[in-house]
Amino acid sequence: MKVYLRDSVKEYDAPVTVEQIAADIGEGLHRAALAGKVNGKPVDLSYVVSQDAEVQILTFKDQEGKHIYNHTAAHVMAQAVKSIYPTAKLAIGPAIDTGFYYDIDYITPPTMEDLAKIEEEMQRIIKANLPIRREVLPRKNANALMRKLDEPYKLEMIAELPRGSEISFYHQGDFVDMCVGPHLKSTGVLKAVKLTSITGAYWRGDANNKMLTRIYGVAFDKKSALDEYLTLLEEAKKRDHNKLGRDLGIFMTEEKIGQGLPLLMPKGAKMLQVLQRFVEDEEERRGFMLTKTPAMAKNDLYKISGHWDHYRDKMFVIGDEEKDDEVLALRPMTCPFQYQIYKNGIKSYRDLPCRYAETATLFRNEASGEMHGLIRVRQFTLSDGHIVCMPEQIEEEFRRCLDLSYYFLNCLGLRDAVTFRFSKWDPKNTDKYIDNPSEWERTETLMKGILDRLGLDYVEAVGEAAFYGPKLDVQAKNVYGKEDTIITIQIDFASAARFEMTYVDENGVKKTPYIIHRSSIGCYERTLAMLIEKYAGAFPTWIAPTQVTVISLTDRTAPEVKELADKLNMLGFRADSDTRSEKVGYKIREAQLAKVPYMLIIGDKEKEEGKVSVRHRTEGDLGVMTIDEFVALLEKDIREKILK
Amino acid sequence: MKVYLRDSVKEYDAPVTVEQIAADIGEGLHRAALAGKVNGKPVDLSYVVSQDAEVQILTFKDQEGKHIYNHTAAHVMAQAVKSIYPTAKLAIGPAIDTGFYYDIDYITPPTMEDLAKIEEEMQRIIKANLPIRREVLPRKNANALMRKLDEPYKLEMIAELPRGSEISFYHQGDFVDMCVGPHLKSTGVLKAVKLTSITGAYWRGDANNKMLTRIYGVAFDKKSALDEYLTLLEEAKKRDHNKLGRDLGIFMTEEKIGQGLPLLMPKGAKMLQVLQRFVEDEEERRGFMLTKTPAMAKNDLYKISGHWDHYRDKMFVIGDEEKDDEVLALRPMTCPFQYQIYKNGIKSYRDLPCRYAETATLFRNEASGEMHGLIRVRQFTLSDGHIVCMPEQIEEEFRRCLDLSYYFLNCLGLRDAVTFRFSKWDPKNTDKYIDNPSEWERTETLMKGILDRLGLDYVEAVGEAAFYGPKLDVQAKNVYGKEDTIITIQIDFASAARFEMTYVDENGVKKTPYIIHRSSIGCYERTLAMLIEKYAGAFPTWIAPTQVTVISLTDRTAPEVKELADKLNMLGFRADSDTRSEKVGYKIREAQLAKVPYMLIIGDKEKEEGKVSVRHRTEGDLGVMTIDEFVALLEKDIREKILK
Repeated sequence: MKVYLRDSVKEYDAPVTVEQIAADIGEGLHRAALAGKVNGKPVDLSYVVSQDAEVQILTFKDQEGKHIYNHTAAHVMAQAVKSIYPTAKLAIGPAIDTGFYYDIDYITPPTMEDLAKIEEEMQRIIKANLPIRREVLPRKNANALMRKLDEPYKLEMIAELPRGSEISFYHQGDFVDMCVGPHLKSTGVLKAVKLTSITGAYWRGDANNKMLTRIYGVAFDKKSALDEYLTLLEEAKKRDHNKLGRDLGIFMTEEKIGQGLPLLMPKGAKMLQVLQRFVEDEEERRGFMLTKTPAMAKNDLYKISGHWDHYRDKMFVIGDEEKDDEVLALRPMTCPFQYQIYKNGIKSYRDLPCRYAETATLFRNEASGEMHGLIRVRQFTLSDGHIVCMPEQIEEEFRRCLDLSYYFLNCLGLRDAVTFRFSKWDPKNTDKYIDNPSEWERTETLMKGILDRLGLDYVEAVGEAAFYGPKLDVQAKNVYGKEDTIITIQIDFASAARFEMTYVDENGVKKTPYIIHRSSIGCYERTLAMLIEKYAGAFPTWIAPTQVTVISLTDRTAPEVKELADKLNMLGFRADSDTRSEKVGYKIREAQLAKVPYMLIIGDKEKEEGKVSVRHRTEGDLGVMTIDEFVALLEKDIREKILK
Repeated sequence: MKVYLRDSVKEYDAPVTVEQIAADIGEGLHRAALAGKVNGKPVDLSYVVSQDAEVQILTFKDQEGKHIYNHTAAHVMAQAVKSIYPTAKLAIGPAIDTGFYYDIDYITPPTMEDLAKIEEEMQRIIKANLPIRREVLPRKNANALMRKLDEPYKLEMIAELPRGSEISFYHQGDFVDMCVGPHLKSTGVLKAVKLTSITGAYWRGDANNKMLTRIYGVAFDKKSALDEYLTLLEEAKKRDHNKLGRDLGIFMTEEKIGQGLPLLMPKGAKMLQVLQRFVEDEEERRGFMLTKTPAMAKNDLYKISGHWDHYRDKMFVIGDEEKDDEVLALRPMTCPFQYQIYKNGIKSYRDLPCRYAETATLFRNEASGEMHGLIRVRQFTLSDGHIVCMPEQIEEEFRRCLDLSYYFLNCLGLRDAVTFRFSKWDPKNTDKYIDNPSEWERTETLMKGILDRLGLDYVEAVGEAAFYGPKLDVQAKNVYGKEDTIITIQIDFASAARFEMTYVDENGVKKTPYIIHRSSIGCYERTLAMLIEKYAGAFPTWIAPTQVTVISLTDRTAPEVKELADKLNMLGFRADSDTRSEKVGYKIREAQLAKVPYMLIIGDKEKEEGKVSVRHRTEGDLGVMTIDEFVALLEKDIREKILK
């Protein structure tokens, strides 16, 4: 029997466990081994290899090893919970990129204060170093066991497993959990665990189901790694837009208004205004025509677009098809509205590419547990746009879209923070997609060609396409490492025909165009969140809601201070003034805390000379200069979009 | 018996008809007399005065006389309809400011083509000069008559009349209609009638009822007056934004999207962008802070604001209180959202007045028959704003609001087109208003004082207030003479307390502030409609979607033309180019038709000299100038917002 390792082959003449293979490779690896992979499938260390196979040993250094490690930590947490809350019912407890969680149904859910108690119990279980054992049961016995333990969520999951599925359980001490695995070989392998937060989460993420309690945690192979993580987490929390954005008065939410419906306060609204004007002007320069289309339409429109069939779950619907003459829905996307503008009047090949842009208000009915600050909301403002073009124009237009987004990302200082994802359909999930495999094949090939010729470094993601075509997603991570799409460029093979959009070619023949759906700067609210986290609120001058604070050294210069602030505002800058009878050091500190880029101090001397003493937030004292000199400095900073 | 006339008194010793009184005053008046007014109540000429009374003779010169004239024309139309469509059922047929209409339920409704036939029959009835006779019937007989004539709508109206009401009918020939009157003495009094249009209209204006057919018409006392009216109507139609706005590519509508949901095409979106930036910048200069708040909220919010009780009919609601955990509604107003921003953080007297502005998207569920072009829509963009202030600040803030609106109206050239309306509550309609008579009394007195001190010339309108307080409405008429509110400033006595909004006064005491609701430029869509009609699409340069068209004299100058258009765009102007191989006269005519303010022509000579030949839309040839000279001219035109 041959065992193929990464860079060698071992021969065995009898079945052998993965752990033994690890030991045979070396003592170091044996100590680090957490689980294995046999022919690409993750398995326990106790898994027996009995025929030729590719084998890989997973350690904490491997993403999958780390996942298994965290998954076992989730089981240990569940065991601890059950020993403290014997009536709690287990739902699901997976590992995630940042650690693990377990959704559990409690009679009285634990609070943040109770986490210490659960952690303590987890430490006891880890210290006991309970062996972890896998067991496969026939469906009947699996059901009997879960009924005995009174675990209704597990019973529901078993009922949904297809006939013939293997149903496995993992035992540790007197605790057992239904689980595909794999897991660590014993609880004592866990070195450092920490429970980090509690939230609510609907069973299966569906707001019609019961709200369960989700406890998040992290697990590391070294105490020092955990400490480092917790320090980073503390740092991240300081940048967390959901806290900092509120502290700085950029946005707020209000229970009576509802979840996922943030209110931009004057500072946030000003930043959005600055960005919106910048984007609309640049798009116009690049040949886009602005539109302003309604935020809702009759469902007749969405039936043609396919939203009614493929996207209805996420739409806010007004009225009832059974009862009402008219059913309206808030738009989740701008596309079918801009198509109508294209269709107004006959288009010829000379009109193409036809580029439409809109600062569009969109609505998506996100699940309650999904919503987060400005990043995942139910109403948002998208720099949306659609390009109607001939087949031979699509590559050039795609390139121009990407170029525009690069330009915006550069201006925001976010260019290096993003990665690319090529999102494809899932042929197994035809409900979610327009069911036309040959068009999917053709368009995905076309798009892959474009991406490759552009030399983009991207990952492929099956099942992440739009329902009407594949897309390139520009991805960014928030402070906690959670990834989201911030910009997307999509090629649509379906909509033009559905909407009977045509153009007349050079020979007078009616043709069906292609459509590119694209965002340029993305969703403004999400971009704002990214900016808050990137700059910890200390925004580049061109974006900063307040660019200058003019400060009086003494009460004697208060009139000059107010006058200068007014003058700067009249010139189109964003200035405020601080003429309180406080010490100047205190006022500078406050402006610094408010993260204002420039502070101008006027004392008697400056007043006399008609000058100002200039301080920059990070560069400190820039010396005394005339007002014209400062205006020139500020103008240059803004014009060049300097990122400091 | 004494009869008091406008400037004399007549004595009679026996009862006398109004017509006889007219004859006694003079032959001219007798000929012109249409009806009378006895003690302020309009009556037929046949009405008998039998005791001391004030009497007035109504002619076509009086608004009320004109109304009665048109009302009789409506009856003549109904008689004509019944003779052509014997199965048609009459609903209501009043006179209106611009003429008359009759809503009728037909088996097969007439089309525009059928109007000539109805008009012909009306002429026959007029020529027959049928005497018109009033008859009062007891309820039983009234019902019997309407049952006999099979008029279900009239029966429904009778059923709703309070006990003891006088039920009157008007006969002319074999036609009879239930009607309060008064009417002309015979059909032959009508001199010139014309049916102008057909629309649908729900019975009682309620979309749950049957859709009836409404025919509009006009009636005049002279053929020449009708001709003059029809000429004016033709002129108005050329300016009608609902036609011209579409022809110029400013907006469109689409059946599949829905009524009252216009799409602004690139030209319209550009104009709205220009106006929005102008408004937001000017408001900021005047101390307003921009916000951006969500377009929807849970009904919890509207329950506090009072919208749920007083405005729900006009709101789009998502979800069902009986079935869903969460009921959301699209906002019809911005107020409760901006209040939440005020409530974020404690406010002191030093923070007041606190002025918030927002370019707000609002939604109101207008009845189908009410919607019209860009003037009455279901989604609109309001230059909304709220000022939270202390009682002693309210007059100054009100003045500032009006001053800002004056400024905007001046910049748009609409200042002379508006009138003012002081809209008060209706104490008899407490459903529609917050029921607090003493606060209404106090606030309306306060507001009247402010209006009078401002020296405003206004009319008072009972029942037109907001549900939370009185308002000043700035009114404007469309091309057809229909009046709408374009701007409003309101004083709110109720909301601050309902939302527990407070400020801390100089003595550290918590106080409740006042709130002013105001719009500055009004609803952008409606303002756009007013501008289209005012300028017949030939907008002042600062608003025009395209400001300059650069035209090539020959193909040889095409590159220079394109280069200049690009240059102007880069400088922030809005320029396009026409380099087609067409005659220059043709290209100028096209730009003129597109109502572009400036046309620049480049021929070989201009190319050589680096100059342009400049034409203005209305001023014609402005001569040859350098590009810098033209740019200076254009800049001045835009900066000074010249209205030509």
